[in-house]
Amino acid sequence: MDELESLKGFYDRYPEEWAAWREIVDTVEETAREFGFREIDAPSVEPTDLFRVKSGDEIVEQTYSFEDKGGREVTLIPEQTPTRSRLVQQRKDLGTPIKWFDTSKRWRYEAVQKGRDREFFQTDIDIFGVESVEADAEIIACAATIYEKLGVADAVEFRLNDRQLLDALLKAMDVEGSKDVMRVIDKKEKLSREEFLDNLELEGVDRATAEEIDELTAISGEMESALVELSDKAPEGDAADDAIERMHDLYDVLSAYDVEDMCTFDLSIVRGMDYYTGLVFEAFSTEGDLRALFGGGRYDHLIEQFGSREVPAIGFAFGYSTTMHLLKKLGEWPDEALSTDAYVLTISDSVREIGLEYAKGLRSAGLTVETDLTGRSVGEQFGYADRINAEYTVVVGERDLNEGVVTVQNMDSGEEEQVPKNEVVENVLDRL
Amino acid sequence: MDELESLKGFYDRYPEEWAAWREIVDTVEETAREFGFREIDAPSVEPTDLFRVKSGDEIVEQTYSFEDKGGREVTLIPEQTPTRSRLVQQRKDLGTPIKWFDTSKRWRYEAVQKGRDREFFQTDIDIFGVESVEADAEIIACAATIYEKLGVADAVEFRLNDRQLLDALLKAMDVEGSKDVMRVIDKKEKLSREEFLDNLELEGVDRATAEEIDELTAISGEMESALVELSDKAPEGDAADDAIERMHDLYDVLSAYDVEDMCTFDLSIVRGMDYYTGLVFEAFSTEGDLRALFGGGRYDHLIEQFGSREVPAIGFAFGYSTTMHLLKKLGEWPDEALSTDAYVLTISDSVREIGLEYAKGLRSAGLTVETDLTGRSVGEQFGYADRINAEYTVVVGERDLNEGVVTVQNMDSGEEEQVPKNEVVENVLDRL
Repeated sequence: MDELESLKGFYDRYPEEWAAWREIVDTVEETAREFGFREIDAPSVEPTDLFRVKSGDEIVEQTYSFEDKGGREVTLIPEQTPTRSRLVQQRKDLGTPIKWFDTSKRWRYEAVQKGRDREFFQTDIDIFGVESVEADAEIIACAATIYEKLGVADAVEFRLNDRQLLDALLKAMDVEGSKDVMRVIDKKEKLSREEFLDNLELEGVDRATAEEIDELTAISGEMESALVELSDKAPEGDAADDAIERMHDLYDVLSAYDVEDMCTFDLSIVRGMDYYTGLVFEAFSTEGDLRALFGGGRYDHLIEQFGSREVPAIGFAFGYSTTMHLLKKLGEWPDEALSTDAYVLTISDSVREIGLEYAKGLRSAGLTVETDLTGRSVGEQFGYADRINAEYTVVVGERDLNEGVVTVQNMDSGEEEQVPKNEVVENVLDRL
Repeated sequence: MDELESLKGFYDRYPEEWAAWREIVDTVEETAREFGFREIDAPSVEPTDLFRVKSGDEIVEQTYSFEDKGGREVTLIPEQTPTRSRLVQQRKDLGTPIKWFDTSKRWRYEAVQKGRDREFFQTDIDIFGVESVEADAEIIACAATIYEKLGVADAVEFRLNDRQLLDALLKAMDVEGSKDVMRVIDKKEKLSREEFLDNLELEGVDRATAEEIDELTAISGEMESALVELSDKAPEGDAADDAIERMHDLYDVLSAYDVEDMCTFDLSIVRGMDYYTGLVFEAFSTEGDLRALFGGGRYDHLIEQFGSREVPAIGFAFGYSTTMHLLKKLGEWPDEALSTDAYVLTISDSVREIGLEYAKGLRSAGLTVETDLTGRSVGEQFGYADRINAEYTVVVGERDLNEGVVTVQNMDSGEEEQVPKNEVVENVLDRL
C-alpha cells in the first residue's frame, strides 16, 4: 500500500528528538512549579463561542473549527486564555492569587512555514486576581529564570513597557484615539521614519506631535536610565508620572530577583492585542532575530468578558519553537540521544532469570534499565547497550556466578569490575 | 453574559484535583522509563484514512472526524496504535526492540456516561520488532509494576490467554471459522451457559464440541495449575502443546519479575479486536468490578497493513479513568491538595527584597516557594501559607534582621526556630 503521511504542520517526534524537547519542557515546568504556579488540565476542544468572546468571528477562519456529530460548533483550542477565563469565572470560591501553568498542544489553521506549525506546544503561566507590581515582577522573573536554566540568559532580553504609561503620555499630548495610535507604534519597527510619521498623521495626529511620539518611542535601553530620559522628555502629566514611578518600582523588584540585567525598557513595545492593559513585554534574542521569542502582559479587563467577575490577570504563553531555534543556534539544544543507566547482559539463557532480578532491583531504584528480549549473542548485546547509550553494562554469566561475582562494565571508559553477586545493585547505584 | 460551559465529556481539572492525577500519570511514566520505554510525541490529528486501515469506515461515526479548511478528511486520534504503526513504517532504520511510551489525550465521540469520556488520557506502552516470550513478559511486568507502585497490587489481577493456543485447541477440535467462534467466547461472561452453547451452534459448532469448548474455556486460575488442567483436558495437537509450553515459559519469566502472583490464566479471555495474534490480557480489579481496567496483547500482523514492513508488536494502552475509580474505592487515590515547600512571609515592605532573595535561594534548590504579591497583613499571609499547605513559613521582619536572625516556622507542628539570617536556605533544605 501507499505510505500514509502525517498532516502538514504536524510533527512526529521520535525518542531521540523528543528527549531534547522533554528536557526543555521539564525546565519550563520545573521553573513554574518553583515559583508556586500550579498545574491544571483543561479541554483541548471548546465550543467555538468561547473564542468568539475574545476574538470575534474571524477566529473561525484561523482555527480547526467544525461541527461535531451533535451539531455543536467546536474548535481545537488555538490558545488557552479563553479556557482559563472560563475556569476562573466558574469557580467563585478560588482564593487569590490564582497561579496556574499548563503545557499542552494548541492548533491553528494557517499557512505552514518556518516557526508556524499547525500543532504546537505552549506552556501558559498566569497570575489571576492580583494587580500588583510584585505580580508583574514575578511573571518576568519566572520567564527570565527559564532562560537562565536553559543556559542562554546572556542571549535573551526582555523588553518591557506599560500600556498605561504610553496611554498617559499620548493623552498628555492631547492625542485622540490612543488605541489606533498604539497600533501604529506597534508596527514602528517595520516602518521607515517617514512612513511612521505618515501613519500617525492618518490617525489624526499633527506633524509636531507625531515627531514628538517618534522621539519618545525611540527611548529604550537599560531600564533606570531610559526611565530618567523619559521623565526628562515626557510631557507633564500626573498619570504619566505615576506610571513611570510604577516602572521604577518594577525595576526594584526585578533587581531583588536579580534579573534586572535581562530587562530593558522600550516605549515602542505595544503587543498587538487590544486586551493588554498594563505591563507588556516581549522576549527577544540578542542574536539579531527580529521575531520575539514570545511575549505577554497584563490583561485586567479580559476575564470579565467571560462572566460576572472582574479579575485582573498577567501572564504569558511560552512558545517552544522560537526558543528551540535559539538554543540550536547557540549550541545549547540538548543532545538528541537516548540515555540509559544500565543494560543487563545475560551470557546464556540459564542466567536470564538472575539477570531479570538485577534489572528489577535497579529499576526499583528509579534507574532506566534494559535487558535482552531476543536471545542475542554477547556481541550483539554489547552493540545494543552502546546504541541505547547505556552507562553501565552488568554482565551476568554462569561461570562468574559460580565464583560469586558479576562484571560491571563502564561503557564509556571500558573499565570493568568484578562485583560480589549480592552487591550488584548497590555497586551500580554508587557509581551513578 | 451567560456563563460559558465546557463540552460534555470534557473535563476542567483545577490544581487540587490535577495534583492527584499528576501523581498517577507520573507513576505510570516513571515505570515505563525504568523498563527502558522511550517517550515519543505524535500528532493529535491525523488523516482519517489512517484510522480506516485498521477500523474501516465505521470509525468516522465514533470519532471527532471532520473536513479541515483545506478539504482534508481528518480525525482527532481515538487511539495511538495507527499513528505508531505509521511511525514504525516510515523509519526503516529503527533498530529493534523499539520500545515506546507516550501519554496524551484521545477523543471519541460517543454517548457520555460513567467511565466513557469524550476526551481522555491514555499512556500507550509497546514493544515493536520482537516476538519473544521475554517481550510478552516485560509488557506484563511493566503493567503489574505500575499497580505495585500505586499500592494496589493485591487488588489487581492480570488474566492472560494466548490466541494461538485457543486457535490451536479449536483446530484440534475441527472447529471451522475460529475467529467467529472466538467472538462468541469473548462474550461468554455475559451469556448463560445455554446462550453460549446456542451461539456456538449458530457458528456451526456441533453440540458435543460446543460443550467441550464450554468446559475448556472455563479453565482459569493460578497459571501453572490451570495449564496442567488444560493439558489434561485439551484435545491432542502439536500446535496446542507448543502454545501451552510457551505459556509455561511466560510463567517462568513472570516469576523472575516476581509478578506471577498477579497473573492468572483464563482461556476465555479473547479481547474483541480481531488483530490480536498471540498473548492477550486484561487487568481486572479483584474488587468485583466486571469491566476490565484495561487490556492489551500481541498484534503481529497489524503494522504491515500500514506499510511494506512486517513488524511484530505487543503492548497496551493504560486507561486512567478505570484505575482512578479503583484507587478511590480502595482509598489509594492521592490527596487532592496543593503542596508547597515554603512560604516566605514579609512583615513589612522594607524587607520585601530580602524576602525575595530567600525565595530565590530556595527555588534554586528546586523547592516550591511562594511569597506575598499583594501587601497582605501578617495574619493574612499565615492564612494563605496554610491554604497552600506550606510546610514551612520563613518569617522575615526588620527587627529580627537587625538582630541577625529570621524565624522559620513548621506549619504543621507550629514549632519555630530563630535562624541566623545567612543560613535560612540551608536550614529549610535540611528540614525537607
